[in-house]
Amino acid sequence: MPNTPILDVKPPQKVRVDLAGRGYDIWIGRHLTAFAAGHIAALNPNGRVAVITDETVASLHAKTLNAALLEHGLTVSTCILPSGEGSKSYAMLKHVCEALIEAKIERGDLVVTLGGGVMGDLAGFAAAIVRRGVRFVQLPTTLLSQVDSSVGGKTGINSPQGKNLIGAFHQPSLVVADIAYLDTLSPREFRAGYAEVIKYGLINDAAFFAWCEAQWRDVFAKGAACTTAIAQSCLAKAAVVMRDEFETGDRALLNLGHTFGHAFERLVRYDTARLVHGEAVAIGLALAFQFSHFLGLCTPDMPLRVIAHLKTVGLPTRIQDIPNFSASVEDIVEAMLQDKKVQRGVLTFILAQDIGQSFVAKGIEIDKVRQFLSGVLEA
Amino acid sequence: MPNTPILDVKPPQKVRVDLAGRGYDIWIGRHLTAFAAGHIAALNPNGRVAVITDETVASLHAKTLNAALLEHGLTVSTCILPSGEGSKSYAMLKHVCEALIEAKIERGDLVVTLGGGVMGDLAGFAAAIVRRGVRFVQLPTTLLSQVDSSVGGKTGINSPQGKNLIGAFHQPSLVVADIAYLDTLSPREFRAGYAEVIKYGLINDAAFFAWCEAQWRDVFAKGAACTTAIAQSCLAKAAVVMRDEFETGDRALLNLGHTFGHAFERLVRYDTARLVHGEAVAIGLALAFQFSHFLGLCTPDMPLRVIAHLKTVGLPTRIQDIPNFSASVEDIVEAMLQDKKVQRGVLTFILAQDIGQSFVAKGIEIDKVRQFLSGVLEA
Repeated sequence: MPNTPILDVKPPQKVRVDLAGRGYDIWIGRHLTAFAAGHIAALNPNGRVAVITDETVASLHAKTLNAALLEHGLTVSTCILPSGEGSKSYAMLKHVCEALIEAKIERGDLVVTLGGGVMGDLAGFAAAIVRRGVRFVQLPTTLLSQVDSSVGGKTGINSPQGKNLIGAFHQPSLVVADIAYLDTLSPREFRAGYAEVIKYGLINDAAFFAWCEAQWRDVFAKGAACTTAIAQSCLAKAAVVMRDEFETGDRALLNLGHTFGHAFERLVRYDTARLVHGEAVAIGLALAFQFSHFLGLCTPDMPLRVIAHLKTVGLPTRIQDIPNFSASVEDIVEAMLQDKKVQRGVLTFILAQDIGQSFVAKGIEIDKVRQFLSGVLEA
Repeated sequence: MPNTPILDVKPPQKVRVDLAGRGYDIWIGRHLTAFAAGHIAALNPNGRVAVITDETVASLHAKTLNAALLEHGLTVSTCILPSGEGSKSYAMLKHVCEALIEAKIERGDLVVTLGGGVMGDLAGFAAAIVRRGVRFVQLPTTLLSQVDSSVGGKTGINSPQGKNLIGAFHQPSLVVADIAYLDTLSPREFRAGYAEVIKYGLINDAAFFAWCEAQWRDVFAKGAACTTAIAQSCLAKAAVVMRDEFETGDRALLNLGHTFGHAFERLVRYDTARLVHGEAVAIGLALAFQFSHFLGLCTPDMPLRVIAHLKTVGLPTRIQDIPNFSASVEDIVEAMLQDKKVQRGVLTFILAQDIGQSFVAKGIEIDKVRQFLSGVLEA
């Protein structure tokens, strides 16, 4: 496995998210700090910028970013928060909102989120509600946030009663995904993010999934193939978001693997030592294809192929892979019923007829889920 | 002054707010509880409804409303909050959001706000962010909220650093303004709401202002003229909102009288014993016309006519009318600079060339404001 990062001197790739009046560009490439600062300054010449980041990311990347922003004539304030999912709380939301007001961020100014999904979701939500909405820029620093949470405008915090239950749709004005940031990720974090990459292939792009099966080593080496994988993922996500910004239909496809996955995260109480989001999605993807086969929707080789690739890259694929996990079928079903996409107690799943042929399946009977999970847990 | 309420047996009047995909009806009339319940049930047949109200309103009206909702086959939960501006806080926002999740309000269900502007702003904001947005219905119980805050989708809470600094644009799905609710208002509250009624005349409808000057006694008697005044106000507000939903331009006209008014509310620390919002607006309207004259934009008889009508109905018109108010010119200017419509320290005012001929004036020099206020405070 070629682990030496390939020097990437290519210009960044651009993906456009076209939304009436709220369109924006996603740029993907390597070493984009100065590039990002220039684009931010172009959005708000000589204006104010508030950088929201966490302790881990701040120690690695904040100084370089702030210097670049200052160099472009911007007035910069920085708000550094504790790392981890715990920051997606009401208390931290208030803290960020008050910091933005204190920093005199006005309509026209910019919030810049520097970090993973937690920072993007939290600071993006704060941007959505301070002065009833100021613009924000996403500088995602993890693979997961580069291919998923930084694109599409979903922002929010967790409720004690469930994840992401409080939030807003608020589109960023710019996303810059710098793969140089990925060099500082742990192998586990990178791998977890990769689960969301292959999800796009599984949803509606069999060729991309096959490309992943063939090229994953180059993606993990974080060279040009990594840029390609991220750009392809952003393109896929952008296409879905453009069709259904507010998740009234098709956008639900992006939840492939997530109905199961969210339940597991919930049941381990979001203890990332045991399970991070991408790992939960990996298990969820395997289960979504197994469940599709269980319902007679696809042939048995489909889940086998999905599971094989997940295993190859080192991702978990079975409920039993979660350390010390003892939840019963009823526990899992109960956790799934808490999902915010539940309507009147009927479960909506994303199921598949083939690799790259997924669809929204409404009104799935809970008893079918119970039968399926019983079999899986006994296996 | 005929203080006996006139029996109003006319059908309610309807004002339509046309917004692409988010249009809704405002109904105005007397004794509309059953009518409102029927319309709510039509929006969400056999669904869940969470009624958010305050202690004062709950004791007067909640039982009747809940009975009507139950009669229409809805599942009803009720959340009763402390009365008063203090409820527009982060803590109460969290409380309402958690109550909505606890009540299993899902996408498709409805939040019903029963109360004045505080309840509408708070519960409307909670509806905007729970599950990234659920629908809500406004049942405003004060004149102020019937003619202003319940229409147009502005929701929010207060920051310790300023009023309404945190919030969202979230349009209601239905507004029912029942003037029977106004019978339980104190004369002071009703009068304060009336300041927002005449504001619509002053903005762009000289004929409506003249009608108010002639008909105000009938409006205060809460008969058919009151319905007309509210409907006319809602029509005026709806027209502005339809032109500029997100306040990027024209909608700022609705702030006539508010740049000064908000500063006074801020300086009395929102002590409603000393100053309620409508009273602050009344003084603000007088000052906006006086300032317009000071800048040479209108003749001196314009502010005199505005002040005369405000005085006739018993509203305050001078800074000196605020009990124990000792703020200096600098205090007032500083408080105005905190307004969320400030852009880069330049003040935006709504000024007028005549009754019904107001306009957005950007880039007003702060020194002009200082000179004007010095004169006013010495008068």
